[in-house]
Amino acid sequence: MPESITLYTAKICPYAQRVELALEEAKAPYTKFQINLQNKPDWYAPLVNPASKVPAIAYGGPAVAADQPSPKSTKLTESLVLIEFVADSFPDGHLLPADPVLRAKARFFIDVVSTKFVPAWSAFVSGKGTADAFVSATEQVTALLPETGFAVGEYSTADIAVTPFLARALTALKNDLGLYPAGEGKKLYDLFHTPRFERLQKYWRDVSSRPSFKATFDEAYIVEKYSARFARQ
Amino acid sequence: MPESITLYTAKICPYAQRVELALEEAKAPYTKFQINLQNKPDWYAPLVNPASKVPAIAYGGPAVAADQPSPKSTKLTESLVLIEFVADSFPDGHLLPADPVLRAKARFFIDVVSTKFVPAWSAFVSGKGTADAFVSATEQVTALLPETGFAVGEYSTADIAVTPFLARALTALKNDLGLYPAGEGKKLYDLFHTPRFERLQKYWRDVSSRPSFKATFDEAYIVEKYSARFARQ
Repeated sequence: MPESITLYTAKICPYAQRVELALEEAKAPYTKFQINLQNKPDWYAPLVNPASKVPAIAYGGPAVAADQPSPKSTKLTESLVLIEFVADSFPDGHLLPADPVLRAKARFFIDVVSTKFVPAWSAFVSGKGTADAFVSATEQVTALLPETGFAVGEYSTADIAVTPFLARALTALKNDLGLYPAGEGKKLYDLFHTPRFERLQKYWRDVSSRPSFKATFDEAYIVEKYSARFARQ
Repeated sequence: MPESITLYTAKICPYAQRVELALEEAKAPYTKFQINLQNKPDWYAPLVNPASKVPAIAYGGPAVAADQPSPKSTKLTESLVLIEFVADSFPDGHLLPADPVLRAKARFFIDVVSTKFVPAWSAFVSGKGTADAFVSATEQVTALLPETGFAVGEYSTADIAVTPFLARALTALKNDLGLYPAGEGKKLYDLFHTPRFERLQKYWRDVSSRPSFKATFDEAYIVEKYSARFARQ
């Protein structure tokens, strides 16, 4: 039986949402504590994560308030490390298949998300990368999907890794929020709704209709924050 | 019982050596096939790894010669995916501890190796990064080591991930091979043998004395290849 889990998170952060999705999918009991990334509490870096980022988990140790973390709990960080930790801690959640080949395919999918999709999206939304490069990275990810179902069949850490980024990308594009030329977001959003991207649309419906996603994604909040962050001069 | 494993590898490549170490440590039966990275066989990209890199594993399928890979075997790539695959396929090899917290610590260690140590070394050896940055990255890794023993106590994927890079870095520095200013390699090599880096020295003795390392690292070969690659004008 796993010990107590306190998750330090932030609604804006796709990396943090990964861990929320994992915990929700695993039906893990946990305490959620929001960190304001613009104004972090003084105790956060020294007592939870020296890198001063979310997500982080305080695991075990004495029962304490989330804003008074004990030095006796184990602090764990890095979203991909944490979703594997949740999968290992709650085997009944089946966040990874039992078959080593399918597990390898899930981790390979995550590698493509991390090294292709996320960098291409970050570059595009910040005005430093092209729409073509982002479209191509999106196609690399969707090419890995089986004809139906999730990334490796059943829902897994692979889907958890990509969903928060897909959610933020689609939300930003739909509202034309980003430092790319005005109108490019809407154009891409429309492109992703043509038959060429039918598999992506189906996948997006599948991942976004899960209760875990609905419980951890606040679209209006993302629109509000991105509107401020990407306000054009 | 896992199916047949053919590993496509190259003696020069630290990523490939990770998978060799994992297979050796797990006492897995496997066939090793050397790919000449300067002159890859025509069949390699289309039949094994479209990214045309090593390492790659062909898993299962009919019994075929390594240089005639069957479309019926499963092809798996990416060194970190592969070492987890070996750990999953050969649980008796104990490449990862059973405790979820220790598994998370192993994966966090690997993350620091991947995002700090490897990039700092690559930058330094190719003349694009400073010695200070590499020293600092090395200290970040050694700071994670417990007082004695391996990265998370027992030997694990964490040690497998860093050892091939440590081996190549120490070999290059000792022989002053790299595109950094002449003499800087020897200077760093000497620095790493002062008491300040005592923990690193002990760790290096521990990982490099394992039979798995001796069976998979050919120092003379690395010196020969690096001498050619890093020949100063």
